[in-house]
Amino acid sequence: MKVAIMGYGTIGSGVVEVLEENRDVIKDRLGDVLEVTKVLDLREFEGDPIQSKIVHDYKDISEDKEIAMVVETMGGVEPAYTFVKAMLQAGKHVATSNKALVADKGADLIRIARENNVNFMFEASVGGGIPIIRPLLTCLTGDVIEEISGIVNGTTNYMMTKMYTEGSEYEDVLKEAQDLGYAEKDPTADVEGYDACRKIAILTSLVAGQQVDYNDIPTEGISHITATDIKYAKKLGRTIKLLARSIKTKDTYSARVAPYLLDADHPLYSVNDVFNAIFVHGNMLGDGMFYGSGAGKLPTASAVVGDLVAMARHIDKNIYLEWKEEKLELEDPSKQSFRFFVRAKATAAEAEGAFGKIEIVDAGIPDEVGFVTDVMTQSAFDEAATKVDVKKYIRLA
Amino acid sequence: MKVAIMGYGTIGSGVVEVLEENRDVIKDRLGDVLEVTKVLDLREFEGDPIQSKIVHDYKDISEDKEIAMVVETMGGVEPAYTFVKAMLQAGKHVATSNKALVADKGADLIRIARENNVNFMFEASVGGGIPIIRPLLTCLTGDVIEEISGIVNGTTNYMMTKMYTEGSEYEDVLKEAQDLGYAEKDPTADVEGYDACRKIAILTSLVAGQQVDYNDIPTEGISHITATDIKYAKKLGRTIKLLARSIKTKDTYSARVAPYLLDADHPLYSVNDVFNAIFVHGNMLGDGMFYGSGAGKLPTASAVVGDLVAMARHIDKNIYLEWKEEKLELEDPSKQSFRFFVRAKATAAEAEGAFGKIEIVDAGIPDEVGFVTDVMTQSAFDEAATKVDVKKYIRLA
Repeated sequence: MKVAIMGYGTIGSGVVEVLEENRDVIKDRLGDVLEVTKVLDLREFEGDPIQSKIVHDYKDISEDKEIAMVVETMGGVEPAYTFVKAMLQAGKHVATSNKALVADKGADLIRIARENNVNFMFEASVGGGIPIIRPLLTCLTGDVIEEISGIVNGTTNYMMTKMYTEGSEYEDVLKEAQDLGYAEKDPTADVEGYDACRKIAILTSLVAGQQVDYNDIPTEGISHITATDIKYAKKLGRTIKLLARSIKTKDTYSARVAPYLLDADHPLYSVNDVFNAIFVHGNMLGDGMFYGSGAGKLPTASAVVGDLVAMARHIDKNIYLEWKEEKLELEDPSKQSFRFFVRAKATAAEAEGAFGKIEIVDAGIPDEVGFVTDVMTQSAFDEAATKVDVKKYIRLA
Repeated sequence: MKVAIMGYGTIGSGVVEVLEENRDVIKDRLGDVLEVTKVLDLREFEGDPIQSKIVHDYKDISEDKEIAMVVETMGGVEPAYTFVKAMLQAGKHVATSNKALVADKGADLIRIARENNVNFMFEASVGGGIPIIRPLLTCLTGDVIEEISGIVNGTTNYMMTKMYTEGSEYEDVLKEAQDLGYAEKDPTADVEGYDACRKIAILTSLVAGQQVDYNDIPTEGISHITATDIKYAKKLGRTIKLLARSIKTKDTYSARVAPYLLDADHPLYSVNDVFNAIFVHGNMLGDGMFYGSGAGKLPTASAVVGDLVAMARHIDKNIYLEWKEEKLELEDPSKQSFRFFVRAKATAAEAEGAFGKIEIVDAGIPDEVGFVTDVMTQSAFDEAATKVDVKKYIRLA
């Protein structure tokens, strides 16, 4: 069975490596070999064994009748969207690791795949190698999913783990993460939560069965977290994690990306370093969690290859997947309720005057008061926060 | 779509509850309603709404042309095997939660299902509500699975958690677990590891693609673990968990069920109470873990309903699943290597004389020496253990 790859970067070359390294076991499971015959890339890769397979025009793939399945590992919305659409319309199955493409064009590409009786799969777009999308779509089908909370960005989880265990400042761990290749030179997409936002938009679209616009999800990163915040967190017996969350309300979902304070009983509490995990609560299942390598060449490529095997097994059949194009109206984020941890330049009495019942947290930091509020809505909190000089707040999960 | 249930006990009635409670969402996902029309049970359930659906002869189901799918939640190998076989031969799909049946007759029933172009599914037989079987079969298909280590028995995990957190003795936590309904009056199948053994036999059969005889898996329970052992474990910075493990060797798998000492870095370390989790290491994926409710009425029923939805989506198609009937020869367990924690009535010098390089663990217990050996094979350990008076040993994971 012939496969083409669009984009021979880290993940694309990882797919070639997985298919070669595990050729025999894949053949046993599938009764067929998955053979990469063409690779689309702007570069030539002179002297590399891949060189003979390199093409520069996507039509060399879309018009190749022998190719049944295509992997898209270019990243970004364009030209990935144009290329993927052309492949689906040419009757080829497509597997992608591209979260930006799936978050933006998921509903559209799923419809086009259905119209052409092929499949569009994207297990690798969330949680890297962790099986989460197919379990949601094929295992938890007897459940109403009431909550999905994920640590879905390895870079920021590495940084938060370092800040927690070493008490370091944000800037220092960012530099360390960059030196180790865990963070990009421009780390914005990771540290400001944009990457996590796209991933929770995808997961929410899947459980709601319709398109979620990631622009509607309030997104806050970790760049404002300091060593002092970590001191308070430890005093509270909690850790700080960047969570991408979606909670079922009566008619819709309520989503947010932000750093949260987690206590030691939370299944995500001990998910450390670059690992990712997705916590799911179903109304019948109860609590579940999927843990593993959320990024990296081979784990992500492993998920792409899992999609290739699944598509090869359904080569003549579109697997129905509900993801309507009509946009889901998420709940107004100002109505979300939390307990808030707050650091304010105020006295305990002033804080209590503004926020009502509070619980003081003494981490020995001068010239401020640290406290935790009762459960209150975001809008009530915002209103109270105008009454005292709030330096920082972090939500409790 | 009409469904029958065989066995209206905890799980069987849970399946009815899930189908009723989540009727709308299941209908949305499937485009059809799953309606239970017949329930096989010896009892009458007078006055219960289920009464009108009760039948006492399995042929009332196998001969009912309207019924497309059957749930088996009776437990035990017979008469479940006879009934399930009859259903498959009558062209009905079967979903089961029955680990004894799957461990014993899995290969056979999968072949019969294939011959009749229907499916035999058993997601609920391992890990209750945790999706593990379908992810292994449909997601991790690009990986060689090098290790599966599971906490797959909730009763014993509850007991080990209690013993660890409260320092209690085995007999006391067993009584408590029995009072809470977590342990049966005759707890043998749980506490001696027989339940976990069947589950790892199923998982090993799936990753190896052929039948594993659970009788070949050395199985040791937790009934010999004492509060003193826990004291030593804490001194080592470890906890004790009953693990069901299968490790890939060159040509086969090497399996064992036993209590193991886990350190705090192990992903299974913080899996507590009645929760289950299955750790998987793939040669491309790296480490992964699936966590959730491993037992209980609704979580287990949720997995059965997930199978019903999957079967309904493949109503005219057998999904190929490699599980050959030819028995897999597991590696000789005496060749497995471990570090062993040992308590012996001996001096440190005598212990060192018998076991070579050791690491003394001082938990303040008189009249004995506690120590950890270097890595050694089970057979080398057994030989060394004849030279001193070994009171207890527990393997490190």
